[in-house]
Amino acid sequence: MLSEFSLIDRYFARRARTNTRRAVLGIGDDCALIAPAAGEMLAVSTDMLVEGRHFLPDVAPRALGHKALAVNLSDLAAMGAAPLGFTLAFALPKPREDWLEAFSNGLFELADRYGCELIGGDTTAGPLNLCITVFGSVRQSHALRRDAAQPGDDIWVSGTPGDARAGLGVLRGEWPQVPIDRADAAHFRHALEHPEPRVALGLALGGIARAALDISDGLAGDLRHILERSHVNAEIDVDALPLSAALARLPRALQLQCALAGGDDYELCFTAAQAQREAVLAAAQQAGGRVTRIGTITSSDMAGSPVAPAITWRDASGAPLNLTLQGFDHFHAD
Amino acid sequence: MLSEFSLIDRYFARRARTNTRRAVLGIGDDCALIAPAAGEMLAVSTDMLVEGRHFLPDVAPRALGHKALAVNLSDLAAMGAAPLGFTLAFALPKPREDWLEAFSNGLFELADRYGCELIGGDTTAGPLNLCITVFGSVRQSHALRRDAAQPGDDIWVSGTPGDARAGLGVLRGEWPQVPIDRADAAHFRHALEHPEPRVALGLALGGIARAALDISDGLAGDLRHILERSHVNAEIDVDALPLSAALARLPRALQLQCALAGGDDYELCFTAAQAQREAVLAAAQQAGGRVTRIGTITSSDMAGSPVAPAITWRDASGAPLNLTLQGFDHFHAD
Repeated sequence: MLSEFSLIDRYFARRARTNTRRAVLGIGDDCALIAPAAGEMLAVSTDMLVEGRHFLPDVAPRALGHKALAVNLSDLAAMGAAPLGFTLAFALPKPREDWLEAFSNGLFELADRYGCELIGGDTTAGPLNLCITVFGSVRQSHALRRDAAQPGDDIWVSGTPGDARAGLGVLRGEWPQVPIDRADAAHFRHALEHPEPRVALGLALGGIARAALDISDGLAGDLRHILERSHVNAEIDVDALPLSAALARLPRALQLQCALAGGDDYELCFTAAQAQREAVLAAAQQAGGRVTRIGTITSSDMAGSPVAPAITWRDASGAPLNLTLQGFDHFHAD
Repeated sequence: MLSEFSLIDRYFARRARTNTRRAVLGIGDDCALIAPAAGEMLAVSTDMLVEGRHFLPDVAPRALGHKALAVNLSDLAAMGAAPLGFTLAFALPKPREDWLEAFSNGLFELADRYGCELIGGDTTAGPLNLCITVFGSVRQSHALRRDAAQPGDDIWVSGTPGDARAGLGVLRGEWPQVPIDRADAAHFRHALEHPEPRVALGLALGGIARAALDISDGLAGDLRHILERSHVNAEIDVDALPLSAALARLPRALQLQCALAGGDDYELCFTAAQAQREAVLAAAQQAGGRVTRIGTITSSDMAGSPVAPAITWRDASGAPLNLTLQGFDHFHAD
């Protein structure tokens, strides 16, 4: 059996050392030493992934390596920060070489693509658990905060939310009565297992968008975080939701459940002043992604009060819809 | 049952907000935003604690909260960095309010004492797992790196290593034939469950010591990391090892096993030029701790070669001792 140190060295440290070194001091000391560029802040986020909760026990380790870092890079994207590096702590029941090789390949393929360097970590025996803390650099004036939405702002979303949730439904066999052809099922599963963090879009939106976050727990639930922190409400045109062709082939109720209350999308939801519409579209084009305007921020009579913010759901005609949706919550049963 | 968000808010976010804010943006956004002081680097370290491996299932949650942060602060101490903040990710089988209250009390008692602010986190359901990433600030020229030891340097250690390992032995009932009185047992257990990170000492040693690390896996094994990275060897005077009065009452073989190959001490092992002896002692006095000179760094004929570095063990008369010791390795059975 590999010892802890040879394990780290073989699959992680050696590979980390071949990257360009943004860190003054990386793996192998008590701490890594890093610094943001002059005049910039360090953006920091941490996510923990647990088997059975964030991934299925039979997930391909390469896909898991990708996703573990992708969900963290997505937090940087939502802040408009440029990736710098990350730490990886993980618990493994037993170090299996084939598993580690595939996992590290998936991890570094994504890390290299975004120039995000592994700067430190920890490994231990235990039930499978992955904890990544990611570091980015952002000008304070360009940070896309959750508390910056203003009444009158457009509400935008990137990509086609809902596909990842449909992928989970397919893998779990949740909808046996719904015919889903093989290509659509593969599309959904890819969305679930290979989310693409919207880093380029987040960077392009700096100075253009106001508030932003990434959709990890479902659009409806996540949007509420912006509303709460910005003390505003929202109106959403449900018919404007961008759906993939595959999702659009599911029954309408499933479409909405997946697109509004599904987790694991890692698309960006953001607000921007109406005067910025062209700039937003240009930023999306520059970043090579799709963005769709789905609603409007409205004022709240209860600024500063602890009352939960309201989302009004409407169809394309403006008629209100009565939707019952529940966002993803890690301590509720799924 | 508490939802994830009210859970975080009740025990962590609300309390974090009452601290002084070193972070421009903390809990509740996609990322925290922090920056080291002008001209300083950010020191980053991450540690994952798993039940049954790093703590016993029946550990008091208040002690666990202390220790989870203490082991991370110890990494900052070993780099000579001043604590700034930390992120906490944890998986819990079920959120129990009494457990969370005691855990967070132990955590924040230590965090507040060192001005180390909770800036972000993640909670999820899963087998109990705690992952903390800690941030500090250090002048690059004052960083205590593992690769900076030079032949002729004194080797120093803080405190009285071995007590924590004796505490584990007591809790596990490993030595039924050895009489250990109740006060000594309590002393050992306290060392195991309430390690005090040597932050003040690490800061005081900046510009004085050369190489340093903290002893988490046993003095012998950890010292080897300095030797490997600095391409040097070492001679240790085993009779010079500082032992607590309680440890000195155990049989000699157990003393050495605990002091040299025991884990969880979180004392500092560091090297400094002989000309710095008075400065080292003054730094320790300023920091309110004890340091002891236990050996010397010697040159290696094999600088740069992959051959394992050598530690020569001697007694006070200079005669070599033949010690068989195994450092703690998380993928070997204990």
